[in-house]
Amino acid sequence: VKKTARSIGVFDSGVGGLTVLRALRALLPAEDLIYLGDTARLPYGTKSRESVVRYSLHAAEVLAQRDLKYLVVACNTASAAALHALRDRFAPLPVIGVLEPGARAAVAASRSNRIAVIATEGTVQGGAYQEAIQLLRPGVAVDARACPLFVALAEEGWTDGAIVEAIARRYLEPMFAPRAGERAGAAATDVLVLGCTHFPVLAGCMQRVVGPLVTLVDSAGTTARAVADQLAALALLRSDSGPGRTSLLATDGAARFARIGSQFFGEKIAPEGVEIVDL
Amino acid sequence: VKKTARSIGVFDSGVGGLTVLRALRALLPAEDLIYLGDTARLPYGTKSRESVVRYSLHAAEVLAQRDLKYLVVACNTASAAALHALRDRFAPLPVIGVLEPGARAAVAASRSNRIAVIATEGTVQGGAYQEAIQLLRPGVAVDARACPLFVALAEEGWTDGAIVEAIARRYLEPMFAPRAGERAGAAATDVLVLGCTHFPVLAGCMQRVVGPLVTLVDSAGTTARAVADQLAALALLRSDSGPGRTSLLATDGAARFARIGSQFFGEKIAPEGVEIVDL
Repeated sequence: VKKTARSIGVFDSGVGGLTVLRALRALLPAEDLIYLGDTARLPYGTKSRESVVRYSLHAAEVLAQRDLKYLVVACNTASAAALHALRDRFAPLPVIGVLEPGARAAVAASRSNRIAVIATEGTVQGGAYQEAIQLLRPGVAVDARACPLFVALAEEGWTDGAIVEAIARRYLEPMFAPRAGERAGAAATDVLVLGCTHFPVLAGCMQRVVGPLVTLVDSAGTTARAVADQLAALALLRSDSGPGRTSLLATDGAARFARIGSQFFGEKIAPEGVEIVDL
Repeated sequence: VKKTARSIGVFDSGVGGLTVLRALRALLPAEDLIYLGDTARLPYGTKSRESVVRYSLHAAEVLAQRDLKYLVVACNTASAAALHALRDRFAPLPVIGVLEPGARAAVAASRSNRIAVIATEGTVQGGAYQEAIQLLRPGVAVDARACPLFVALAEEGWTDGAIVEAIARRYLEPMFAPRAGERAGAAATDVLVLGCTHFPVLAGCMQRVVGPLVTLVDSAGTTARAVADQLAALALLRSDSGPGRTSLLATDGAARFARIGSQFFGEKIAPEGVEIVDL
């Protein structure tokens, strides 16, 4: 990493990682941020581990050529499958994923030591959250479930209302129901990890379904705080007061990226502001 | 095409085209069928036209090397974007898509000349159904809508029940409601084209929502019949009585292909029966 390198690269399979970019933008207003959504090959969540590693290395290569001081893998599936490969390939560039900050926040928030994780199929099957949480606190019970319809709802912009709530009940209620054979009053699952960067836009509805006693851990916010802490520790934070630039790259479909992405980023993205890069 | 070529190739972005394979298997029991699902790069429905053309040519290349006498593009998005490119590239191999048989069946079934089409985003935005229908019968009013949640529901295996019905109502009722400013009794939309090969598994619920007076056109069935007709016309049908072989190829994830694909194919697929090919 060059001493003069300026930018924080943020990489995702598509638009979901824009929830991470949004959190970074809010927390680090002076920094230059470059986001790459690999929209030509999304979703990663249903692809094999080998494919996700290969795609992640290709995509990160594009960002690595753009004056990076830090790389954020803003995709749970890629964090689970490709973090080690990315660190090996781009060392000494510091690389962080969304998974470990989320696991840390979950463990910190749980008193019952029962944690629910919702994610894509790839993330759940890889078992990465289960592993990361149990490394941090052995003996924690982790119940992980793939919730692909949440991704579709978030992309469709249906983020609240009767349909979203019915789907949330169907996915979440079994994870928070008392277990058969347990005595009444046994410790209940008290944390829900949103293990996919699409999910924060549905958080309001999910919180209503699981009730106020459950803490929702949103990996976008927790990751942004971890990035800020690490940049400070490495003395890589910009000292001037900004405002920093935000650059948006995608591998396919600027119009769709702008339209769907706007709700994840929380502000209007113009299609002509999205640069298409070919991998 | 060699005189001795035996197989009918069927190509889709993933598992949805297995509804077409199922219809072909039922209609042409003596034929050898080879299916390729490009699961490493699905879905095509949200990708740009250029990417869909490139992916389709790659995928068809694999099939074309396997003794084909006929190629079926069992994906509406690829049919809309890449049919001409495929015909140019693989001539004189006959190539058929799912779109034109569906458009033909829709026009034949409509008396009101008002047709609704539901499909992926790519198919709707490309306008291919609208164009194909109006070429067949100018002046027909076509109302096309992208319904991405139907794809997610079909893949999740949620094919009926209250959630599916609520989503179907939200997507379909506006397409079948009386139009503002029209007099009572004006001709109503009387055909619904299922313009995505995922949708036939949701047909029962859709029919309930739109009512018994609307004809559902399922491009899987209509395409299989068109293939049988054309093979007969070209004297390419097998004269021996079979049973023909069914070979399944995918570009990623045999386990997921088998699990999700079984409900589209209508019979159990074993993961070890799925050959993974690298493009």
